Amino acid sequence: MPVNLPLPDAATLYPIAGVRIGVTEAGIRKANRKDLTVVLLDAGASVSGVFTSNRFCAAPVQLCREHLATGPGVRAMVINTGNANAGTGADGLARAQRSCAALAQRLGITAEQVLPFSTGVIMESLPVERIEAGLDAAIADATPDHWLKAAEGIMTTDTQPKAFGARGLVGGKQISVSGISKGAGMIRPNMATMLGFIATDACVSQAVMKQLSLELAEGSFNRVTVDGDTSTNDSLVVIATNKAGNAVIDSLASSDGQALKALMLDVARKLAQAIVRDGEGATKFISVVVQGGRTAEECRKVAYAIAHSPLVKTAFFASDPNLGRILAAVGYAGIDDLDQTGIELYLDDVHVATQGGRNPDYREEDGQRVMKQSEITVRVALGRGDATETVWTCDFSHEYVTINADYRS
Amino acid sequence: MPVNLPLPDAATLYPIAGVRIGVTEAGIRKANRKDLTVVLLDAGASVSGVFTSNRFCAAPVQLCREHLATGPGVRAMVINTGNANAGTGADGLARAQRSCAALAQRLGITAEQVLPFSTGVIMESLPVERIEAGLDAAIADATPDHWLKAAEGIMTTDTQPKAFGARGLVGGKQISVSGISKGAGMIRPNMATMLGFIATDACVSQAVMKQLSLELAEGSFNRVTVDGDTSTNDSLVVIATNKAGNAVIDSLASSDGQALKALMLDVARKLAQAIVRDGEGATKFISVVVQGGRTAEECRKVAYAIAHSPLVKTAFFASDPNLGRILAAVGYAGIDDLDQTGIELYLDDVHVATQGGRNPDYREEDGQRVMKQSEITVRVALGRGDATETVWTCDFSHEYVTINADYRS
Repeated sequence: MPVNLPLPDAATLYPIAGVRIGVTEAGIRKANRKDLTVVLLDAGASVSGVFTSNRFCAAPVQLCREHLATGPGVRAMVINTGNANAGTGADGLARAQRSCAALAQRLGITAEQVLPFSTGVIMESLPVERIEAGLDAAIADATPDHWLKAAEGIMTTDTQPKAFGARGLVGGKQISVSGISKGAGMIRPNMATMLGFIATDACVSQAVMKQLSLELAEGSFNRVTVDGDTSTNDSLVVIATNKAGNAVIDSLASSDGQALKALMLDVARKLAQAIVRDGEGATKFISVVVQGGRTAEECRKVAYAIAHSPLVKTAFFASDPNLGRILAAVGYAGIDDLDQTGIELYLDDVHVATQGGRNPDYREEDGQRVMKQSEITVRVALGRGDATETVWTCDFSHEYVTINADYRS
Repeated sequence: MPVNLPLPDAATLYPIAGVRIGVTEAGIRKANRKDLTVVLLDAGASVSGVFTSNRFCAAPVQLCREHLATGPGVRAMVINTGNANAGTGADGLARAQRSCAALAQRLGITAEQVLPFSTGVIMESLPVERIEAGLDAAIADATPDHWLKAAEGIMTTDTQPKAFGARGLVGGKQISVSGISKGAGMIRPNMATMLGFIATDACVSQAVMKQLSLELAEGSFNRVTVDGDTSTNDSLVVIATNKAGNAVIDSLASSDGQALKALMLDVARKLAQAIVRDGEGATKFISVVVQGGRTAEECRKVAYAIAHSPLVKTAFFASDPNLGRILAAVGYAGIDDLDQTGIELYLDDVHVATQGGRNPDYREEDGQRVMKQSEITVRVALGRGDATETVWTCDFSHEYVTINADYRS
């Protein structure tokens, strides 16, 4: 049961000129399940991606990096669920290459113009022949209107499809943005994979795409955590189809660049937060805001220490305003010269700790009231500087253990 | 129900000449509970300590550091349960000082010769008057034979007292070592505190005590983790009473120094491992051995990534030989230039992964057999160098969530 996650609103999932999506049931792991998605791009799209930092990155992630770095313009993506093609060595790489080649051959492009994505069980061999067998049906299904279907097609243990759109004026033209994401449900038998795809019809030079994708990831997918485990397959791909007729954005610092980034960040944040709202066993959505740090990095350290602490997360599950656990996490976050007497702590509007100790005016029932909510903001003021960072997470429930202790079936 | 943790064996809890221990019921938080312990040292003992790295360290930890750094020889320790005196600001410091002064006055020593320790609820005011009221009874109770009683006296939510001893020849003299520990049971309502006290009658110069305590901590208490949360109160104190008549050890590198360290490390390891065996909700005791690293630090990074991963820990709880979760943790441990094709993974004697992928000879039933055991060794070979490190941890069960989500009562 996700935390305050609405079903996708078809009316705001805008077709993006130059993007067609097709989905089919290829029987990759289970029958009667949408498990193969192709995204077809008109020539001339600008594309960039951000991928997992896990050194055990999956074969498709390795190929994505190569194809983005060296290939000509990306023209297609092939996404399968049911098998992550991770921990599969040289054979896994060959199978991922085969899936790219199979799609390329059908589209009359090169294999390097295809980006592959896989999510599902790891350390099992990718049944690439099933992908090959399903490609014709997926291509035949392709239309600009299939964003919701694609959101369903990339689901694994997600309980809901995740798709958002946004529209606004950039450089005097109406610009559309649509995106989908999946995760962080555990893939039986193995691990969460976070996938995100965001497309816009805006005109953006390839030169700024890397920075755009990095900044979108930094403001969204890189700020969510369920259990701190970084998957082998995490990928975020950002596409600009260059169809909207706006003056080409060749600097993110320009007002057009800022306007586009704001639109896309709105979608990216909703997609990333949706992953936490649908997090395994989540009953609460928690924003951890750390302000007053000397650097953004130290704010993030503190925010992640809080967001990853099993003690803090179980306290949220229990609706227990357990200040000590939060302050202790601040204390071990790794800021060597942190002065505890400078710390202020708030739960929403309730000022619970001041100067590193209990606020004399704090009443337990006020903390209790906030902790019972399904949306909670924890705010820590470090009193050391001007930096601020926010991380989104969820609580830690019995259901998390149940889901993850469930033997692979 | 601790994992393979024997009850203390009174026959091996050796009295240490120069150490007397008294325990009483002071009613600090609850009545009819041993909650106040004094340790009285003859003049001339060498003492050192290692304390939490948490910046929110408790008042008694601050005082211990001061008294060890500047005071004359330590003559006594006062340990209370029921209240951690953490997150209590200047008032907490004053109360900790008052407890030292009260014991000092009764013993005819200075307050700086007393080390205070507290464990229990945090962010609540220490009822120091109850400590003062209990001191006479605790002092009157003091004898050299009370190691087991002290192990009981420092328990909080520990399900068993933790005490071990060892004897051996050092410099031709029989040397005794006794020690006690507590944790990592969650103190309702707040946090785990790990306390350890280890004493020997050996003659050791004060000059080498700091190094001895650091090396003991590095080989024991600093290598255990239950949930990765570092408490505000963690303390390890090492005492040498200089009574055994051996030639004074003034270098740990000497053969006598090495012999003594080996004896004490044996006790320290058992005490530290006992904390994991009695970890909250633990059903399995897991040794994570990482070898073939370039440095000890990178081995530790990998070992802690595995030991802290909720996904790995729930897989152990489920007896699920989920290789992918372990390899993924290796991958995100933070070794930037890690080559996944160099990784070997073993569960006890079973070789589960080779060159970063599934070992073709690995059979699931062999992994399953190991995972069902109550003691499991996970061994990762990085293939990069000669360093090796070991970390001990436990699994992550429903009971952990139950214990830590239990509202403070």
